[in-house]
Amino acid sequence: MPLDFPVEYFNPTSVIVFLSFFAMSQLPTLKWGIISTGMISSWFTTDISIDRPDARANHVIAAIGSSSPEKGLAFVEKYLPHINTPLIQTYDEVYSNDDVECIYIGLPHSMHHEHVLKALNAGKNVLCEKAFCMNAREAREMFALAEKKGLFLMEAMWTRFFPVIHEIRDLLFEQKALGEIRRLIMDMSFDAKLEALSDDDRMKNPRLGAGSVLDLGVYVLTYSRLLLDSGVGNKAAKFTSTAAMKIRGGVDLLTSILVQYEETGRQAVLTCGLEVAGSQPYLRLSGTKGYIELWGFNQASPRRYRITYTDGKVVEKKFDIPGYGLYYEADAVAIDIKQGKTQNNLCPPAESLLVMDTIDSLRKQNNLVYPDFD
Amino acid sequence: MPLDFPVEYFNPTSVIVFLSFFAMSQLPTLKWGIISTGMISSWFTTDISIDRPDARANHVIAAIGSSSPEKGLAFVEKYLPHINTPLIQTYDEVYSNDDVECIYIGLPHSMHHEHVLKALNAGKNVLCEKAFCMNAREAREMFALAEKKGLFLMEAMWTRFFPVIHEIRDLLFEQKALGEIRRLIMDMSFDAKLEALSDDDRMKNPRLGAGSVLDLGVYVLTYSRLLLDSGVGNKAAKFTSTAAMKIRGGVDLLTSILVQYEETGRQAVLTCGLEVAGSQPYLRLSGTKGYIELWGFNQASPRRYRITYTDGKVVEKKFDIPGYGLYYEADAVAIDIKQGKTQNNLCPPAESLLVMDTIDSLRKQNNLVYPDFD
Repeated sequence: MPLDFPVEYFNPTSVIVFLSFFAMSQLPTLKWGIISTGMISSWFTTDISIDRPDARANHVIAAIGSSSPEKGLAFVEKYLPHINTPLIQTYDEVYSNDDVECIYIGLPHSMHHEHVLKALNAGKNVLCEKAFCMNAREAREMFALAEKKGLFLMEAMWTRFFPVIHEIRDLLFEQKALGEIRRLIMDMSFDAKLEALSDDDRMKNPRLGAGSVLDLGVYVLTYSRLLLDSGVGNKAAKFTSTAAMKIRGGVDLLTSILVQYEETGRQAVLTCGLEVAGSQPYLRLSGTKGYIELWGFNQASPRRYRITYTDGKVVEKKFDIPGYGLYYEADAVAIDIKQGKTQNNLCPPAESLLVMDTIDSLRKQNNLVYPDFD
Repeated sequence: MPLDFPVEYFNPTSVIVFLSFFAMSQLPTLKWGIISTGMISSWFTTDISIDRPDARANHVIAAIGSSSPEKGLAFVEKYLPHINTPLIQTYDEVYSNDDVECIYIGLPHSMHHEHVLKALNAGKNVLCEKAFCMNAREAREMFALAEKKGLFLMEAMWTRFFPVIHEIRDLLFEQKALGEIRRLIMDMSFDAKLEALSDDDRMKNPRLGAGSVLDLGVYVLTYSRLLLDSGVGNKAAKFTSTAAMKIRGGVDLLTSILVQYEETGRQAVLTCGLEVAGSQPYLRLSGTKGYIELWGFNQASPRRYRITYTDGKVVEKKFDIPGYGLYYEADAVAIDIKQGKTQNNLCPPAESLLVMDTIDSLRKQNNLVYPDFD
C-alpha cells in the first residue's frame, strides 16, 4: 500500500514535538493562588513556571497573595518576569478568588494553621509548606476540616516526590539492592548565623516556632520514613524515637534523634542543627549488601546517589533537573485534585500526622514548649 | 682555640647515633608477661618489639602465658621470630614469675575480672584490654584491689595515646581551632559476618559479653570523652546518654548512642554495630569555625585528620607510624610504673569507670543483661 502522506512526517523530531503538544494538551491544568512572597514562595512560583518536557501537569498562577501591593509587585517583577503578570491581592482576596482552585501556603509555620483553615473554609484545596504546623493537634484540626469540606489538603513535603527518591525506594523495597536494610545515618544542619539575626526573626523567636526540629527535623524524620519503611501513613510499621536537644532561650539549636523500628530492628540516627554546617553526602543508608549515599542541591532536594556494594561494585547516578524541583509535588497535587482526590498516596494526612506526633513526643522528652501554641 | 679532636666527630650521623644510644640507655625498661595468644596479644607483642626512634621506653617480653605450650610456641614462632624466644608458661606461672613486672591481659573481656584480680593478687602491675570488664561493679572491684595492693592498673584504651589524639586535643582545647565545639558524629561498625560464626563465639555468645556496645561502644564513648570534654576522669563535665539497641538473642547488634553535655550543650551521636560496614572518615567533629574529620588504620587507631574551616581553608595531616600503634600506651605504662605511679593521667580509673557506668546505664535502658555477670 502506498504512503498517503509525505515521508518527512516521519522525522523523529516532528513526531516528538507533535506528541509533546498532544501530551501537554492532555495534561491537567491547576490554577494556583500563592500565599506570601517569601523565599519558599519564590522558589515554588519559579519552579511551576518552568517549561519541562517531563511535566505531568500545567500550572497557572491565578493570584499572588501579599501583605502589601508593593511586596507583591516586587515579587512578580523579580521572579515571574516572563509570564503574564498574575493578580496581586490580599490573602483574603485570594481565598475568595473564584479563579483560584488551589492555595499554596508559603507563610512561616506559626501561621499555617490559621491560613489553612481560612483557605479551606473558603472552599479551596490547599498545599501547605512544612513544617506543616506547630503541633499534631493543629494538624488534626486542619485535616479534619479538609475532610469535612471534601477538599484536598497536603503537606508540601517536596522531598517525597523527587525521582531520586522513587528510584531509591524501588531499589530498596522492590529490588532489595541493599539486602536487609539496617541503619540510616543522616544529617541536615546549617549554620544560620543566629547571632546576626534579630530576636523577632522566625529562626530565633520561640513564639514563631523557631528551632531546628520544626525547620529541619521534619526532613530527617521524613527520610527515615521513606528509607526504613516501605509502608506509608496508616500502613507504617511501629517505631520508637528519642531525642537529645540543645535548647537555649526556648529554641532547640541542635537536635539529635534516634529512631528504631522494633520489628525489623532498623535504626535511624538523625541530626539537625542551626549552628553547624552540614556535609555532603548527607545521608548513608546501610544494608547487608552495601550502602547508599546521597548528595543534593540541599539535603531536602536529592540529586545524586551512589551505592557501594560489599563486593566492591559501585553504582552512581546523577539527576539533572531544572530549578529547585518543587514542581514534582505541584504536579502530584494537580493530578490528585483533577482526579477528585482529597489526599495524596505518597504524602497522606496519616504520614504528616506521624511526623508531627513524633516531633511532639521528642519535644515533650526535652521540655521544649512553643508558647501560645502548646 | 684549636680543636682537640678530629673533625669527623662532628659528622651529624655519628652524633645522632650516639645521642640515640644515650637516650635509649636512659629509657625505662619494663618486663612484660603476656597473657593469652589471641589476635590482640599478637598485635601488642609485635608492636612493643618494633625498633622505634620515638620510643619512650624499652620493652622486654619476659614470659608468654598460653592455655597450651603448642599455642604458645606457634605464637612466638609466628609473631616474635626476631627476638630471643621468651618463656612460654601457663597463666598462673606468668603471674608468679619473678622476672615479670607488668601483666598484659589480652583475654576476651568476660575473663578480665578474674585474671586481673589474679595478677594483682600475685603482686603484678596490670594493663588490661578493653572492654575493661563486663560491668562497672567488676571495674570497681579491680581498681579497689589495685589501690589496696599499691599496684598499677590501667584499661588498655590505646586510642587515648596516639599522637593524632594529643595533637587534636591541643588544637581543640588549647588553640581553639574549631572555635566553640558543637557536635561529634562518629561511627564504628564492621560487618562481623555473625551467621558464619559458631554460637559459642565470643562475638555471638551473650555469656561472653557478645555485642557491639562492649566491643565497639567503648571506643565511640571514648572518642566522645576525648573530643567533647577537656577534663579527664574526676574532672569530667556532667553528661547524659541514651541508646537505641537492636537486640537479637541477647546480643546488641546495632547500638546508637546520644551523648549530651548539659552545660556546654555539646552533643555526640555515636553508632556502632556488628552487621554493617563502617566508613572513612569515621568521625566528624563540628565547631563554630569548621569541622575536623578523622581517618585511621581502623577507627580505634587514627592516622590522618583534616580540618575544613568555614572560610574554606583546609588543613590536613598524616601520621605515618609503624605497626598498629599499641606501643604508645605501652610506653606510657612503663614510664608510669618506673616513676612509681599506680595510675595514668590520660586513662585513670575514674575515666574507665565513667565509660563502664555509661554502658551499664545504656544497657539498663534497653534491658540488655549479660547472664552470669549482672
